[in-house]
Amino acid sequence: MIDYQAPMRDMQFILGELAGLPDVAALPHCEDASPDLVAAILEEAGKFATGVLAPINRQGDLEGCRLKGERVIVPDAWQSAYDQFREAGWLGLSLPPEFGGQGLPKLVSTPVWEMWFSSNMAFTMLPQLNVGQAEALLIAASEEQKATWLAKIVSGEWAATMNLTEPQAGSDLAATRMRAEPTEEGDYRLYGQKIYISYGEHELTPNIVHLVLARLPDAPEGVKGLSLFLVPKYRLDADGNPGEKNDVHCISIEHKMGIHGSPTCTLSFGDTEGAVGYLVGEPHQGLKIMFIMMNEARFGVGVQGVALGERAYQSALDYAQERVQGRNIVSGEAGQPILYHPDVKRMLVGMRARLLAMRTFLYTAAGWFDIAHHHPDTEVADKHRRYVDLLMPVAKGWCTEVGNELCDEAIQVFGGMGFVEETGVAQLFRDARIITIYEGTTGIQANDLLGRKILREKGATLHELLDDMRAVARVVREDSRLADLAVGLEEMLEGLAATTGWLLAQGKEQTAALYGGAVPLLYQLGTVVGGWQLVRAAQAAQRQLDHGEGDPDYLDSVIALARFYMASVAPEAASHARAVREGGQVLAQFPETGL
Amino acid sequence: MIDYQAPMRDMQFILGELAGLPDVAALPHCEDASPDLVAAILEEAGKFATGVLAPINRQGDLEGCRLKGERVIVPDAWQSAYDQFREAGWLGLSLPPEFGGQGLPKLVSTPVWEMWFSSNMAFTMLPQLNVGQAEALLIAASEEQKATWLAKIVSGEWAATMNLTEPQAGSDLAATRMRAEPTEEGDYRLYGQKIYISYGEHELTPNIVHLVLARLPDAPEGVKGLSLFLVPKYRLDADGNPGEKNDVHCISIEHKMGIHGSPTCTLSFGDTEGAVGYLVGEPHQGLKIMFIMMNEARFGVGVQGVALGERAYQSALDYAQERVQGRNIVSGEAGQPILYHPDVKRMLVGMRARLLAMRTFLYTAAGWFDIAHHHPDTEVADKHRRYVDLLMPVAKGWCTEVGNELCDEAIQVFGGMGFVEETGVAQLFRDARIITIYEGTTGIQANDLLGRKILREKGATLHELLDDMRAVARVVREDSRLADLAVGLEEMLEGLAATTGWLLAQGKEQTAALYGGAVPLLYQLGTVVGGWQLVRAAQAAQRQLDHGEGDPDYLDSVIALARFYMASVAPEAASHARAVREGGQVLAQFPETGL
Repeated sequence: MIDYQAPMRDMQFILGELAGLPDVAALPHCEDASPDLVAAILEEAGKFATGVLAPINRQGDLEGCRLKGERVIVPDAWQSAYDQFREAGWLGLSLPPEFGGQGLPKLVSTPVWEMWFSSNMAFTMLPQLNVGQAEALLIAASEEQKATWLAKIVSGEWAATMNLTEPQAGSDLAATRMRAEPTEEGDYRLYGQKIYISYGEHELTPNIVHLVLARLPDAPEGVKGLSLFLVPKYRLDADGNPGEKNDVHCISIEHKMGIHGSPTCTLSFGDTEGAVGYLVGEPHQGLKIMFIMMNEARFGVGVQGVALGERAYQSALDYAQERVQGRNIVSGEAGQPILYHPDVKRMLVGMRARLLAMRTFLYTAAGWFDIAHHHPDTEVADKHRRYVDLLMPVAKGWCTEVGNELCDEAIQVFGGMGFVEETGVAQLFRDARIITIYEGTTGIQANDLLGRKILREKGATLHELLDDMRAVARVVREDSRLADLAVGLEEMLEGLAATTGWLLAQGKEQTAALYGGAVPLLYQLGTVVGGWQLVRAAQAAQRQLDHGEGDPDYLDSVIALARFYMASVAPEAASHARAVREGGQVLAQFPETGL
Repeated sequence: MIDYQAPMRDMQFILGELAGLPDVAALPHCEDASPDLVAAILEEAGKFATGVLAPINRQGDLEGCRLKGERVIVPDAWQSAYDQFREAGWLGLSLPPEFGGQGLPKLVSTPVWEMWFSSNMAFTMLPQLNVGQAEALLIAASEEQKATWLAKIVSGEWAATMNLTEPQAGSDLAATRMRAEPTEEGDYRLYGQKIYISYGEHELTPNIVHLVLARLPDAPEGVKGLSLFLVPKYRLDADGNPGEKNDVHCISIEHKMGIHGSPTCTLSFGDTEGAVGYLVGEPHQGLKIMFIMMNEARFGVGVQGVALGERAYQSALDYAQERVQGRNIVSGEAGQPILYHPDVKRMLVGMRARLLAMRTFLYTAAGWFDIAHHHPDTEVADKHRRYVDLLMPVAKGWCTEVGNELCDEAIQVFGGMGFVEETGVAQLFRDARIITIYEGTTGIQANDLLGRKILREKGATLHELLDDMRAVARVVREDSRLADLAVGLEEMLEGLAATTGWLLAQGKEQTAALYGGAVPLLYQLGTVVGGWQLVRAAQAAQRQLDHGEGDPDYLDSVIALARFYMASVAPEAASHARAVREGGQVLAQFPETGL
């Protein structure tokens, strides 16, 4: 079994120096996020992740979930871990105090959730669903609904699910068929089947609250006819406690490649009398509510990319420092650990460089969420909202793809041992494979980036971002010790500006060609954003070195990581750019019969 | 469960037009490889792969292998499949007629083994071991040993294993500890433990012949002290039949991420009286014999990359043609299969382009093996031997890495269904993960390429190859219809020439930096070689079109695939080149304490 330690040094450095914790803590509603409190929270979370969640991760993978009749049996260790998680109040970290949460900014909850995902991804999907559902109810539920359901969801007393997918409606929710029929009592009866429902059934909590997309009888066709319903597993009695079983049944669970500890259920609604449900928000506004939550949800999956990559990196580093094999290619000495082989070092330095790039990007973006929500100056708030909107497909798409690469590379460091399940690194690789798929595949993220986030607004926000990144390069160029990094960044920025200009110059007849280059575009932008963040990190490290603050070894390594990224990762941006401009054209003309 | 059909059109096109089947069939000892016979063999093999091996692939994954005491139980369906495989004579396809084989050239056996790996990788490792062992015995065994053992290995009556790895001796065989002590009878007793022994124990055959690396009492230290021994599971009685059980015991099997149907055993030799073994070849020459076989073995794993990628591609294409979801981004129409989404098409065209590149490369290289072995003009034979030596690390390293990428991309085409085991594509992804590791990791291939194959001979063969590739580009440039492909190829060749020049100009003090760039170098060379092969393919397709031969749709698609490769894959060569030159430098200076 592999260990996990929260990467506290990186977390603290990024929060304090790069993602603007002091600025966020100065915002209204964020005042609690004092450096001391944040440090204490991270430390406690780290202990919980290392001590409670990480040790049961492999056990959960081995046991998996079972269907017994309609019951779903999750791994044995889940109950105690969930009870401890709930009792410690971790669930409500970022949720509003009026419903029992702690109301801390996203910038603080992000590293904490990263720890949960690193230590036990399959388990963490359970409380994550509560946070997602709480956010939906906060947006759309009536005051009465909030009073009835929200506090229990925030505390975790009841569990939550999201029911979107149906067999014919995966990425395309317009094809949703689930029906909701109004009753004379003012509620609804739901009929239909939902698939891929994470934690759709289990016995960890006395009730489960399903949030379900369905169609009202008078609903218009397509996505504009979807409404959102709350459907509890057990209807509430007069005292608000779980009473009669609702007409919702788990009819099967999936046998998946990874996240075995997280049951993926097919739920059947309304086999007999109809599943009793309550409309959340206005009729036909279901998808709109989902869309409001989408940036948050996609951001969360991006964090999973860093989280799994981090644990994979830690295990690979640990193995590379222990395993003795071969001779040092420079000195010829035997008996050294494999870390001294240049290629093993290459993999580990490359992993760490991309981890630092992604983490800095995601935490910085978490700060943007907070500023967008809370900054009193609407112009400042709006600008950060625009950045969030533009870059969420990158946070999701790029960080999950890179997260997968890191898990893959960790196996390579382990060699044959990586292919053997007992080391645990194979599990990370299997678990990670879902993250580029759920909450919208990389292709869907890329289409969103290209269509809604760039073309629709004629590149306005992207140009704004380019200017901000150029400003960083300009400042760094003045420091002769870091000027090489500025050169690398500027080269990438010119490439991105050229790609953007080219995209915007294409006419409607180029639509297929443009979308054929959407994923390379997302990779190009991700690679550039990662480089920008590492240059910022190097700049902050140099500043601390100049002021005699911090650990010089650590700060030197940050600068060296930025340098490695510029030498070995940044050049990929140019090849992605060519795939955008040339690949899409070839594709558009490629005959399907040639496949 | 996913289907498999041998990609006959590609195989025939490559064999006939690109890999030189007519030339190979004109070589001494290769005369049997007439077009008609080869077509008949491919057809029969295709039927066997589709009808016998493919249908039991998933069953083998689900059942896996079990240890019962010392017995290893393999999947139920293996026995019948193995008996059919053996009885049909597939095992001896490329082995010498004097021991019961058919003696067909490697160019013919390569597509056939590709089919076996595509249809059932875990099963195929069993007969593959017989071929490998037969080749070792042909090189090194005495006439008496050949008479006793070889025909049974060629026919598959007995199974074979290769015993190299020990817990402390993985990539570094110098650390081998297994002892072999001579007896008064003239044979040896072996003592020690071997791990990661594929098919180390099973009951599919009445005997198993282990080939084991061990040290004689007077052996020098390191790799020069290893000898090769033949150790049967059952010693032979006076009639040459399996008799007394030898002192070899399976003490555990690994729980692996993939190839579940292939048992990976820990074998203990000599727990009591010592395992009786027979020296093969001269004392202390064991590793030399292994090295002679190494190009063949590595080539075989490269073929696994194409094979698994091909099956992944077929399943992804099939799914993309069936699954209806979303709207056509150009026409706005609903109800079309996902193949019409530009990004899905991008993935499939990219998969097919890389498959054609790899397959053309590997079959062409198979032809080089045959020419190297059989060409009467030693200058011609030597040149092809040099190409084999130079490019085997690329065939193994690059084709397995790309094979993994294709399996990964196939999952992405399937979306959520790809993560669910029942579609079978997840199994391909898991199975494939070992191929970049065994027979030498990608890092080891890259070190071999850089050190032994380029630096040691001052780039002589690489320069020869560059000239050959430039000649192709020059010819193609004259055809205005393909001149764009020549431009793309020439750009890559200039980049490769620059990298080569730079490598050769570095001094000893740059050793760590050079080896830190070895894997990017292997990727660069692989990308260039793939592009060269696709330009050759486009050239052959154009020639057939001009002569009114072949299926114009297919031939057009070959040219379009080359074009897509130049637009979307070839640009990566330039980014790898930068990682070679710049990344290694940064790495060499990177402090290990920064990890």
